[in-house]
Amino acid sequence: MNVKQQLSLYKTMVEQALEALPFEGAPDRLKEAMRYSLLNGGKRLRGCLVLAACEAAGGNISDALPFACAVEMIHAYSLIHDDLPSMDNDTLRRGKPTNHIVFGEGMAILAGDGLLSHAFEVMAACRAPGAFTALSMMAKAAGVSGMLAGQTLDITLEGTQPDRDTVRQIHLGKTAALLTAPVIAGFALAGADEDTLAAGRVYGENLGLAFQIVDDLLDLEGDAALMGKTLGKDVQEGKITWPACVGAQQAKQDAAACIEKAKAALNIPALHSAFLQELAEYTLHRVQ
Amino acid sequence: MNVKQQLSLYKTMVEQALEALPFEGAPDRLKEAMRYSLLNGGKRLRGCLVLAACEAAGGNISDALPFACAVEMIHAYSLIHDDLPSMDNDTLRRGKPTNHIVFGEGMAILAGDGLLSHAFEVMAACRAPGAFTALSMMAKAAGVSGMLAGQTLDITLEGTQPDRDTVRQIHLGKTAALLTAPVIAGFALAGADEDTLAAGRVYGENLGLAFQIVDDLLDLEGDAALMGKTLGKDVQEGKITWPACVGAQQAKQDAAACIEKAKAALNIPALHSAFLQELAEYTLHRVQ
Repeated sequence: MNVKQQLSLYKTMVEQALEALPFEGAPDRLKEAMRYSLLNGGKRLRGCLVLAACEAAGGNISDALPFACAVEMIHAYSLIHDDLPSMDNDTLRRGKPTNHIVFGEGMAILAGDGLLSHAFEVMAACRAPGAFTALSMMAKAAGVSGMLAGQTLDITLEGTQPDRDTVRQIHLGKTAALLTAPVIAGFALAGADEDTLAAGRVYGENLGLAFQIVDDLLDLEGDAALMGKTLGKDVQEGKITWPACVGAQQAKQDAAACIEKAKAALNIPALHSAFLQELAEYTLHRVQ
Repeated sequence: MNVKQQLSLYKTMVEQALEALPFEGAPDRLKEAMRYSLLNGGKRLRGCLVLAACEAAGGNISDALPFACAVEMIHAYSLIHDDLPSMDNDTLRRGKPTNHIVFGEGMAILAGDGLLSHAFEVMAACRAPGAFTALSMMAKAAGVSGMLAGQTLDITLEGTQPDRDTVRQIHLGKTAALLTAPVIAGFALAGADEDTLAAGRVYGENLGLAFQIVDDLLDLEGDAALMGKTLGKDVQEGKITWPACVGAQQAKQDAAACIEKAKAALNIPALHSAFLQELAEYTLHRVQ
């Protein structure tokens, strides 16, 4: 099976698990608002990474599925809150009206809060031996030194031209944190040792940086039809991007270097890492 | 030591632990916005309940302190998001401008998200044997079948006259969930058995209902100087309250009956429950 087929298999598993979440006890309107954004397509890369990492370290995919759902819920919550009028003020996301446009701002805030809370509820219901460690990694990644640090820097530095190190910090927080945690969580759920978790961090952070740089490059040079959205928006809106900081040519080299580092990190005997390494390569050459 | 002195002792411990939280890795502005609302006074009843419950069941207060901080962070986050223009649109909280008035709406949303995430980060760093169960209870209480269910019903039913059962549902979610979870969490951290946890639920839910009914009554009949806020706002704004539903006289009887149920629930040999029982009585007769 090639990387695309395997990814598609993982994605189907994640989609089915998300679709089946009962959100027991949630009022109908809240459930509707949460599901609207959670089941809005997307690559499910974060969820797939939990499954792939767990399998690579010899674990059971059934232990990993709740965590795959959790990281997708955390990702969905962050997008709902990001799109709010007082944040990025976006009205469209993947071709559909954003959550607050459909449900109103108050419900959109609650839907985001609900998805974040439910992510922890689902993880905390898991009784696999590595579950507490995995949950802890997710909390850190979603938290004030991870994703929220990136979002805060992004907001407070808007309209400035930060240097390369600061852009790196923003990307590490906004994007890489939530691509690193699923890898470490997947390893932890399989009972991996400290060295393997550390390798997962190097892999995830470099994959995350490359993923964001490629995203920025696609907005500059991508195919609008394939991407399914208007391109060139980053430049137009003065967004903080890697190519804007170092130039497109250097950005391409940097992304490739990150992917090399990511792949190298997983060359350890404890892992069956072929898929994760191919996935890193695939991420570099994606066109959408 | 009487109940007031003991409560004040617990409160000081909670305050000091909150004050000492490092929020490591958080950008300055985010940390400032979180601390602004977290360290804004308040009774710290939720945090004190974790400590009291843990001690009542024979546990160590040092295991309970991270959870006391966590429940206060969850409470603070819920108030920040509740006060937002698209929710209750409040500009003052305990005599100080609300978070979004000081830091702007975007940062206030992030500060709330940060406090919720950090609550889980702090709980997940705790390695006491009952920690995972305690965290799970907190997640459920803060989640879509708990506090967020209450808030959703409150928003979607605004301006209507719901029946007694619906008001009970709203109060159970908005108030009682986050008074019940600290009790169960405190018991769990002390290694209490299932029966004791079940007793904690009956105690917490009834304490929570009574607490909210008394809150509603104080808004009707309290002393504005003691309360430190304008009273009569609930009626003026057509808020959903217990006295509005059943009348003030019946509401007083209902609150007293809840407190009797709460106290009775803790009459089990496994617990040193004198303080928790006196606290319930104290809650009924509070004047602020």
